[in-house]
Amino acid sequence: MAAVQPKKKISLALRQDGQPDSLVHITPEVCFGGEKLVLIGGPCAVENLQQIIETAQAVVQAGAVMLRGGAWKPRTSPYDFQGLKEEGLELLVQAREATGLPIVTEVLDPRDVDKVAQVADMLQIGSRSVQNFPLLREVGSTQKPVLLKRGMMTTVDEWLAAAEYILAAGNKNVVLCERGIRTFDTTLRNTLDVGAVAVLKHKTHLPVIVDPSHAAGDFRYVTALAKAAVAAGADGLLVETHCHPSDALSDAGQSLTPQQFSELTAGCRAVATAVGRTL
Amino acid sequence: MAAVQPKKKISLALRQDGQPDSLVHITPEVCFGGEKLVLIGGPCAVENLQQIIETAQAVVQAGAVMLRGGAWKPRTSPYDFQGLKEEGLELLVQAREATGLPIVTEVLDPRDVDKVAQVADMLQIGSRSVQNFPLLREVGSTQKPVLLKRGMMTTVDEWLAAAEYILAAGNKNVVLCERGIRTFDTTLRNTLDVGAVAVLKHKTHLPVIVDPSHAAGDFRYVTALAKAAVAAGADGLLVETHCHPSDALSDAGQSLTPQQFSELTAGCRAVATAVGRTL
Amino acid sequence: MAAVQPKKKISLALRQDGQPDSLVHITPEVCFGGEKLVLIGGPCAVENLQQIIETAQAVVQAGAVMLRGGAWKPRTSPYDFQGLKEEGLELLVQAREATGLPIVTEVLDPRDVDKVAQVADMLQIGSRSVQNFPLLREVGSTQKPVLLKRGMMTTVDEWLAAAEYILAAGNKNVVLCERGIRTFDTTLRNTLDVGAVAVLKHKTHLPVIVDPSHAAGDFRYVTALAKAAVAAGADGLLVETHCHPSDALSDAGQSLTPQQFSELTAGCRAVATAVGRTL
Amino acid sequence: MAAVQPKKKISLALRQDGQPDSLVHITPEVCFGGEKLVLIGGPCAVENLQQIIETAQAVVQAGAVMLRGGAWKPRTSPYDFQGLKEEGLELLVQAREATGLPIVTEVLDPRDVDKVAQVADMLQIGSRSVQNFPLLREVGSTQKPVLLKRGMMTTVDEWLAAAEYILAAGNKNVVLCERGIRTFDTTLRNTLDVGAVAVLKHKTHLPVIVDPSHAAGDFRYVTALAKAAVAAGADGLLVETHCHPSDALSDAGQSLTPQQFSELTAGCRAVATAVGRTL
Repeated sequence: MAAVQPKKKISLALRQDGQPDSLVHITPEVCFGGEKLVLIGGPCAVENLQQIIETAQAVVQAGAVMLRGGAWKPRTSPYDFQGLKEEGLELLVQAREATGLPIVTEVLDPRDVDKVAQVADMLQIGSRSVQNFPLLREVGSTQKPVLLKRGMMTTVDEWLAAAEYILAAGNKNVVLCERGIRTFDTTLRNTLDVGAVAVLKHKTHLPVIVDPSHAAGDFRYVTALAKAAVAAGADGLLVETHCHPSDALSDAGQSLTPQQFSELTAGCRAVATAVGRTL
Repeated sequence: MAAVQPKKKISLALRQDGQPDSLVHITPEVCFGGEKLVLIGGPCAVENLQQIIETAQAVVQAGAVMLRGGAWKPRTSPYDFQGLKEEGLELLVQAREATGLPIVTEVLDPRDVDKVAQVADMLQIGSRSVQNFPLLREVGSTQKPVLLKRGMMTTVDEWLAAAEYILAAGNKNVVLCERGIRTFDTTLRNTLDVGAVAVLKHKTHLPVIVDPSHAAGDFRYVTALAKAAVAAGADGLLVETHCHPSDALSDAGQSLTPQQFSELTAGCRAVATAVGRTL
Repeated sequence: MAAVQPKKKISLALRQDGQPDSLVHITPEVCFGGEKLVLIGGPCAVENLQQIIETAQAVVQAGAVMLRGGAWKPRTSPYDFQGLKEEGLELLVQAREATGLPIVTEVLDPRDVDKVAQVADMLQIGSRSVQNFPLLREVGSTQKPVLLKRGMMTTVDEWLAAAEYILAAGNKNVVLCERGIRTFDTTLRNTLDVGAVAVLKHKTHLPVIVDPSHAAGDFRYVTALAKAAVAAGADGLLVETHCHPSDALSDAGQSLTPQQFSELTAGCRAVATAVGRTL
Repeated sequence: MAAVQPKKKISLALRQDGQPDSLVHITPEVCFGGEKLVLIGGPCAVENLQQIIETAQAVVQAGAVMLRGGAWKPRTSPYDFQGLKEEGLELLVQAREATGLPIVTEVLDPRDVDKVAQVADMLQIGSRSVQNFPLLREVGSTQKPVLLKRGMMTTVDEWLAAAEYILAAGNKNVVLCERGIRTFDTTLRNTLDVGAVAVLKHKTHLPVIVDPSHAAGDFRYVTALAKAAVAAGADGLLVETHCHPSDALSDAGQSLTPQQFSELTAGCRAVATAVGRTL
């Protein structure tokens, strides 16, 4: 008969009595969990060199300190654009060189983790992968910072248990990202759960950021959700931005123009100040 | 054969092109929908004279401009405290006289509407009554301002249709109150839907306020949710406060002490300023 | 200070150790909770004499032992057909006289309970009224059998607590009706919760029936859901039927024709036999 | 610029006009989608040789034609029993040799697909993996029959799109398995969606089976849900069974004893007959 592991409780992800907020450093300048919020901008998917460079330059100008962009895209239909893959990674590198912004990009397949980790500054685990345990273990075996998005159907405790997979594998650099949950109400694409942000700031020492773009699914409401997130205590924001949203190959409806992104930054900066933070 | 009404669309509750925010006046000083947010404090239920007077004095001191308190309480179990009813109304009147705060209280039964409307400054329709159509018509037949809470599983469009019942009956003084929806996640009592606030500020001209207390169900998270609501554009807050929360006959766990309520006020005032409002 | 009622637990609605199924008698021939399932047919709303008589005759022919039909209709929009009210009641009486079928019809307003109870054989409390406590107390003060539908957002325990309001008021004749709950999936109008039927047959002695029509919202799936309900242990079925569904003033899409209703009856009878019941 | 794939619609998973049910053959005797339902029994996890052999012998005796058993287990916590992995596969092979039952077992990691496909008769994609697209593509590249479970918050259309990933990769042998969805009601572990079974029998030509064990999470309700599934049109059942449920390393509460499994078989056989099928 096989040996069975002893029962152990989730612990690494939980804040112990008096434990301070953990800091997750990306570069000497960019750090999650401190007094300064981390603003990440960029497109849903990397589409071509001009798009990613132009968007990166726009977001850095508007105050972003990090660039997002998908090279591998998880899509509901096999016939939708699946991302530029390795070529997308290379374009992200060029955008980093052009702007100095560190990059975060999604990894979907455990077999791609090494490849992506060699290039990206932070690995994103997407909503649909939050309980992809082989993938969690694989990113846990690197020392790259991991952005762990909440699943559409994941409770706060399940999410923390998913983080524990990464932490238990030896990687302490985990940042949680609330992005809206699935509920009966389809007025917006998802329901942003700002309460989860408040709860997590009590329950865990890990940084918690918010993606208002996927929650809203509609550019008109992204800024209001972003401000709410900052007010609730989020440590950063992940905002979809596109130099020409109407041309975007995915998530066109929720991407902000550079101008809208600038307004979001200004609005969120004021709210950040009101809650004793900076941005 | 009976005549059938012609099909008509929801319209009175919707913002027409260019229509400004509606103002709902309670007293010359208290008005929903303007630049100044309306802060309502008070206990879940009116319990006795000392409790309601003491709490009312505490909330007015902390910045509240209106007093809440339940005289008729909708309770899941028939064996739970159902409120002091008429006696509760009288105690609310005494609290109003002692503090000058206008009062909002729930009405559950269409047969009680006249009685409550003669006393209260604003009638609350609770979450479980949002689609109690006879009750909506009854409060619509008065000119008393109505605070219409969202049901735990009411879509934004159903909620606006419920408001339309009141408006179509001739009462233009409707204020909407988001209070959390029911979802798969039970980390908090309900999931505060700040996105609904943002959507409603586009869709309707009616004022929209937020009840962070019922959404959280836990005093530790009420202030964070309140700040998020203000940041998302809410026109006011309804906050459960109790002079001695641990003695409360209902909702003990989510009631703020006067001291906590003061801190909430200060925190929300800063966020209000950040989004161009006052409190 | 006011006297506070002592805390008591829900008990009348719960099956005590060894307690047999309760029987709710409507007429000497029609009884809920016994070996024979109760099949109720009829239109969403009573529309005119010909419609209700023709439909009643069709459903009795197809095996129904009881007639449903709404005289007061709870509608999301104030501009939708609200029912024929008192005139609808009179038409139901004529249909009963023509067919011998006892009638069940919804009551929405506590002020209408006496009026409806004088005419109907069973009072229906609709989904939106499941936690309308004044209404529950009012039907509890009669001895008329009550069909208590589950709300779209009601847990099994909240539903039993709603039944307790009626039982505690002195009316022992309560039948529960599962009709689908609201979930994230909108493929069908609601999600029929057959598991709740199975759980209730353990937890309560009260009869439990199922309304597959509102759950499906689409006539093509009503029979499959009805069979599933019978297989799961339901004590009866409430099925929307219309002599000319395409002309129905409400719920046209989910109403069965008399022919389809006959097929449902035959199909469910076979399943009933398979689980040791009759229909 | 990279080439973008043309937009195509989900089609392979959908039933075209007049298209008959697809048959998915496992062995010459076991086939999904025909008149005879496929009954699968076995434990949540393979634990040791005696447990899997004893359980396999019990389920074959009770009418099962296929054996389930997890070698790789997706667990919420990294500290829970994760399965015997390769050793578990070997034990399944021994159980197959001892009983003649073909085996279905879960594969979690795309890197394990070849290894598992060499041994198992059918590959299970678990609920948490329903949108694990690299894994779907990988099992799609084999010709092994795939049991694709619905996710806890997957809509019917998303589920069919997930099946399309496998079909589009060249593997036509897909069987869908409804296993309960996540809703606001936590009375049972999940809410079995029998309506989805009815809808799928219209929308797709693929076989659809039901797992009543995970939906119920409680052995007392498994048989009622199984009967409901058969009545709604399911093409088979996947039922957790354990020779000694109280000793099970996972899912103890929902596993049936061999005796209970025999009763389920008898009950479902009667219902199958009632709906014109055999079991």
